[in-house]
Amino acid sequence: MAKPLILVSNDDGITAPGIRTLVEVAKKIGEVVVVAPDGPQSGMGHAITIGNTLRLDRSIAFDDLDIVAYECSGTPADCVKLAKHHVLKDRKPDLVVSGINHGSNSSISVLYSGTMSAAIEAAIEGLPSIGFSLCDYGHEADFSHTREFVEQIIRQALQHRIPENTSLNVNIPKKSSEPIKGIKICRQAHAKWQEEFDERLDPRNRKYYWMTGNFVNFDKGEDTDEWALVNNYVSIVPCQYDMTAHHAIAMLNEGWEF
Amino acid sequence: MAKPLILVSNDDGITAPGIRTLVEVAKKIGEVVVVAPDGPQSGMGHAITIGNTLRLDRSIAFDDLDIVAYECSGTPADCVKLAKHHVLKDRKPDLVVSGINHGSNSSISVLYSGTMSAAIEAAIEGLPSIGFSLCDYGHEADFSHTREFVEQIIRQALQHRIPENTSLNVNIPKKSSEPIKGIKICRQAHAKWQEEFDERLDPRNRKYYWMTGNFVNFDKGEDTDEWALVNNYVSIVPCQYDMTAHHAIAMLNEGWEF
Repeated sequence: MAKPLILVSNDDGITAPGIRTLVEVAKKIGEVVVVAPDGPQSGMGHAITIGNTLRLDRSIAFDDLDIVAYECSGTPADCVKLAKHHVLKDRKPDLVVSGINHGSNSSISVLYSGTMSAAIEAAIEGLPSIGFSLCDYGHEADFSHTREFVEQIIRQALQHRIPENTSLNVNIPKKSSEPIKGIKICRQAHAKWQEEFDERLDPRNRKYYWMTGNFVNFDKGEDTDEWALVNNYVSIVPCQYDMTAHHAIAMLNEGWEF
Repeated sequence: MAKPLILVSNDDGITAPGIRTLVEVAKKIGEVVVVAPDGPQSGMGHAITIGNTLRLDRSIAFDDLDIVAYECSGTPADCVKLAKHHVLKDRKPDLVVSGINHGSNSSISVLYSGTMSAAIEAAIEGLPSIGFSLCDYGHEADFSHTREFVEQIIRQALQHRIPENTSLNVNIPKKSSEPIKGIKICRQAHAKWQEEFDERLDPRNRKYYWMTGNFVNFDKGEDTDEWALVNNYVSIVPCQYDMTAHHAIAMLNEGWEF
């Protein structure tokens, strides 16, 4: 049987440690092709490049692993589009994986996440996809404990298939002295970032701002990704790109007058 | 009774004709404050500025209408965050409106849309919100026929309230000789952009790419935004920011082995 073809992307850029871990694990399972941003694209949400040109060049980032890789000047969603319609024009990946992100993409962060936008773009393209994130923002983050979970989830996804039009948002707890308890299928917790803006003066006395924020979880449910992560489980949320609030359609049809 | 406070943003930038139309209509109904990008931010999806500073300056763009306006160096989502937590720190807007976008944001485009990301960011912040788009990309687009629908929808939203944790994605057909038939509450059509990449050589003989694409609607339903727009109705899709594919949770729990 032919090896499955696995496309890898991310949002931290092609030289980030997280994508190297993901590529190494994916290589144990299938043939790997990498198309990833040439620099950091964190917080890019589902941005695409429409009024500007894109560069796409062969990268030497994974030559040591004998893996074909491309670096792209665009966003994570651009990378997946270029991979599907240009780099892999005549082949269909069996799976698209994105990450491993340096930092959590649980609950509301899925909307801001470049890692998940690559995965969701793949789902829109009809390709099974998974975004992986490690709940550790540190530059020295330890990815070693993620390998077994990443491998297990990729193998399950290839064996059982991911439900149509969905993408999996996988978050893995930070490495600690406690072993991870297992994997939980979850819903997205109802939470938000509570922002504050730090106002400063530049050397010319003009104001500028740094956005800072604290994560606030409003959700008491024990079936959420936040609950799973706090309790040292890996969380998997199946995500869809249909954003319709279906329950609200009837409310609007009944209550509003047009 | 005090006038409602209406916050206005967009993604085409503070000097675009679409936001001017929206501000003029909103001013008939309430007190208006504008916080909008200082330049075009189309296709920015739900991007936010996390590794960089933000500028926020008073703008003269709406001085002729006697309206307080700010221009921001960030994305549409940044604008709403800055408005909520800084500009309007001590006041709560009764409604947030974004647009009027130059071009459709129907069906799958909601994910790529900066206009809708401003509206959805407002919903995350607990503020009722609406994104307006005109299905006309042209620089000379005629917004005149949008006014009555924008006014009607804003008034209904203030009167009946928008369901919690949702934001309305309103698309208005391009001006034509046919009158618009009315307003329909819809679901997001299952559709995608079929991209192609136009490969060119720069003056130094290095390759670069332009993304081009055709919109493909896979959805035969008559309850979708695409159906409404093709049939010359204004479409309203209530959108939620919970991206969980709830139906897929049971499928994964039953089928997968962890």
